[in-house]
Amino acid sequence: MAPVIASKSLTLSRDLPLDSGQALAGVQIAFETYGELAEDRSNAILICHALTGDQYVASNHPITGKPGWWERMVGPGKVVDTNRFHVICANVIGSCMGSTGPASNAADGQPYAMRFPVITIRDMVRGLVGLLDELGIERLHTVIGGSMGGMQALSLAANWPERAARVLAIATTARHSAQNIAFHEVGRQAIMADPNWRGGDYYGAETAPDAGLAVARMAAHITYLSEEGLTEKFGRNLQDRDKKSFGFDADFQVESYLRYQGSGFTQRFDANSYLYITRAMDYFDLAEEHGGKLANAFAGSRARFCVISFDSDWLYPTAQSRHIVHALNAAGAPVSFVELSAPFGHDSFLLDVPALDRVMKGFIDG
Amino acid sequence: MAPVIASKSLTLSRDLPLDSGQALAGVQIAFETYGELAEDRSNAILICHALTGDQYVASNHPITGKPGWWERMVGPGKVVDTNRFHVICANVIGSCMGSTGPASNAADGQPYAMRFPVITIRDMVRGLVGLLDELGIERLHTVIGGSMGGMQALSLAANWPERAARVLAIATTARHSAQNIAFHEVGRQAIMADPNWRGGDYYGAETAPDAGLAVARMAAHITYLSEEGLTEKFGRNLQDRDKKSFGFDADFQVESYLRYQGSGFTQRFDANSYLYITRAMDYFDLAEEHGGKLANAFAGSRARFCVISFDSDWLYPTAQSRHIVHALNAAGAPVSFVELSAPFGHDSFLLDVPALDRVMKGFIDG
Repeated sequence: MAPVIASKSLTLSRDLPLDSGQALAGVQIAFETYGELAEDRSNAILICHALTGDQYVASNHPITGKPGWWERMVGPGKVVDTNRFHVICANVIGSCMGSTGPASNAADGQPYAMRFPVITIRDMVRGLVGLLDELGIERLHTVIGGSMGGMQALSLAANWPERAARVLAIATTARHSAQNIAFHEVGRQAIMADPNWRGGDYYGAETAPDAGLAVARMAAHITYLSEEGLTEKFGRNLQDRDKKSFGFDADFQVESYLRYQGSGFTQRFDANSYLYITRAMDYFDLAEEHGGKLANAFAGSRARFCVISFDSDWLYPTAQSRHIVHALNAAGAPVSFVELSAPFGHDSFLLDVPALDRVMKGFIDG
Repeated sequence: MAPVIASKSLTLSRDLPLDSGQALAGVQIAFETYGELAEDRSNAILICHALTGDQYVASNHPITGKPGWWERMVGPGKVVDTNRFHVICANVIGSCMGSTGPASNAADGQPYAMRFPVITIRDMVRGLVGLLDELGIERLHTVIGGSMGGMQALSLAANWPERAARVLAIATTARHSAQNIAFHEVGRQAIMADPNWRGGDYYGAETAPDAGLAVARMAAHITYLSEEGLTEKFGRNLQDRDKKSFGFDADFQVESYLRYQGSGFTQRFDANSYLYITRAMDYFDLAEEHGGKLANAFAGSRARFCVISFDSDWLYPTAQSRHIVHALNAAGAPVSFVELSAPFGHDSFLLDVPALDRVMKGFIDG
């Protein structure tokens, strides 16, 4: 992938302590903002991105040229109304769109590669809180996140309870299940099995572990869609042909689609970042961080919560959202919860689900 | 993997016509039998194996030394009672345990590799019917199969309706769904991305595409287990350690288990066979073969059917079994259907589910 210059970027003035016991110095955070910050700084909304997301929530991606990943939700007059709110979206540490990650240079002037410390979701949020400190934003109007973004929103609420008045967690979980870990492990093994991975030291080489990364993306992508959605979208339809080829071409549309998803992904994402971020997600267990009881995580919170799941999401099914809601109830935190019906599986939070817009708008404006 | 000498093997006396329009000459079928064939040849039961299965249904595997894959079901006094029945289990064509497949030599004395024709489930059954012809068995007492074995059982019932009196199809489907195809495509891409695959020409080379094959197996293996089963078996338990390593070792038991499954598999299976057999499964659509209507497939049948699904099987969920049952009903075929409750996911048919034993025994003896 090509090097990326983020449109906005700053270096945290303090070292970032990490859950591993290590620390990162000179941490760079790349971010985008949309809309004006009010004089009293009360209208800031932080949007946390998912595993392969980035800060370009409502502006064109500099590599792909595609519209922002949540443009349907964020913009003037939209659900997250940038005429009223100052929206911040930052690339998480460990990622590859301008924030410090394995492709960044370490103190010796060489890329960290696998010398980058293993980070956690809480470490990512430490980076985001560091950014808010630099920007002088003490308390967010709302923190919003879907999928891994939801983990960050929950982690912020649990560990920095004074930093957000509202917490909106969508299609997420308080802890990665064995099946979640298993799918990520397949992806990591696919990357590490690629000889071009070279133990992570492929920066500057002519080849990157694109083949392994593509396979990882393909496996993960299946988990983002529902069986019903795949059947509706592709079924057993053939791709550009009338009958089966009796060969190993992409006969079926679903094969062609997956290959396209896999190869497209390698243009914009770094394989080592994929390793580090999936590891952070697998390590995520908010209860474990708080004495083994999820309710404890929210004991100090005075935020209002909104938890949203989708009935076709089998990656983080509704039961995992319910688990969060029960803990919030036990902690006495105000929470509204809704399971939305949508056919798109986990990816529903990114797609056209009008009920999601209504619920989000109601919560943010409420 | 090491070359395998099957304990029993024969060469079909006739060329095998294939759905692709090609034909295979000198087809070898490796098989095992258990129990005596009655003088009137009325007591033969054919067991069809799954994707990575083989003929060693009730005897030790020659490579791994492990017990037969269905020893709990097949043997003297067991559900498939070899004191009463003559049980036949043959390696399907395209596989790698002695039947003709991509690792076999073509007419030029070199391994077929990717010159092996793409085969279908019906082609596999053609091979099995060819075996029955050679053995002089006109009509089976029962044909039994789970997963891909169930596809074969259904294909035999549909295309050779006079060859089996009873058809027992377990944890299977009449057609591969988009999601089924998608998971297989990930596996194939993992294999083909392995530089040691060499376009399939790795026979005799020092290295085989083991890394790619292991990733394929890992991805598939997740689909064989239920989320609930994985949680029960592994949860977030750590492997041989008290706390997370903050590294990329297999911290979690589920990671360690998957890696073990992946690497173990490469000892006994051929990567090209994995490509061909998954392709055959993805091509499987019994309705399409019969004018687009599944009931048509069974119109000529006079067999009795038993269809069994498992409530935790998300690879071939109960809805797919119901689809088969409805078609059998529409065709006027006698069928009993049961959805069994078991926590093990798709693999339930191989594991200790006493209710399965009872249903199978009742059907076979009935």
